[in-house]
Amino acid sequence: MESRMPAWDDLEERTIIAGFHGRFIHGQNVTLVKWHVDAGSPLPPHSHHHEQVVLVSAGELEMVLEGERHLLRAGDVLVIPPNAQHEGLALTDVDVMDVFAPVREDYRDPKKGTILGSAGED
Amino acid sequence: MESRMPAWDDLEERTIIAGFHGRFIHGQNVTLVKWHVDAGSPLPPHSHHHEQVVLVSAGELEMVLEGERHLLRAGDVLVIPPNAQHEGLALTDVDVMDVFAPVREDYRDPKKGTILGSAGED
Repeated sequence: MESRMPAWDDLEERTIIAGFHGRFIHGQNVTLVKWHVDAGSPLPPHSHHHEQVVLVSAGELEMVLEGERHLLRAGDVLVIPPNAQHEGLALTDVDVMDVFAPVREDYRDPKKGTILGSAGED
Repeated sequence: MESRMPAWDDLEERTIIAGFHGRFIHGQNVTLVKWHVDAGSPLPPHSHHHEQVVLVSAGELEMVLEGERHLLRAGDVLVIPPNAQHEGLALTDVDVMDVFAPVREDYRDPKKGTILGSAGED
């Protein structure tokens, strides 16, 4: 049985793709990531079987979900269903938390799989 | 396929147990709750089959997880494994987000089940 009490500030930051600097918490059923995203950084189009909830706490993040554009600011939430195609662009520096379920095994150990997933992942 | 872009402030607040005022987002795999907890409010001992991640953003929250006491402040995270006994006490007014996986069906419709779960739930 697993229990932990980290503080986000204690966690190592890793840069997963250019401009996306994340801190990671993996449970049994969920992965949480706190990202700082550099202004102008694009998130290329992709999909994955994990549901993803995007919670913006600072800045402006443009997300395109299955062709529909959303502009997210502090306090906004975007729920990305499993396997839904999505992409993004940080219009400013952005602080954002992602909740993934199930666990992102590729974030736990980047050597184990693709970081972004793909349209044909599953 | 479900996708939504609420802002937390747009969501209705519901008081689930005395002193715990929550706003709820339900996906397919996760439920997120933003709570404001009144100072002095106790969370009685209970357990549930959902994994729960507790993310404190303001105030001081005492949590006891399987007999071990944790004092959570802004930026602290507590991962509560499925079926682990836990209880809490808001030492001050507290702002805290809970991430549950799987979905808390009892929060979606409180008439469908117990709110707190119990030690013998599953």
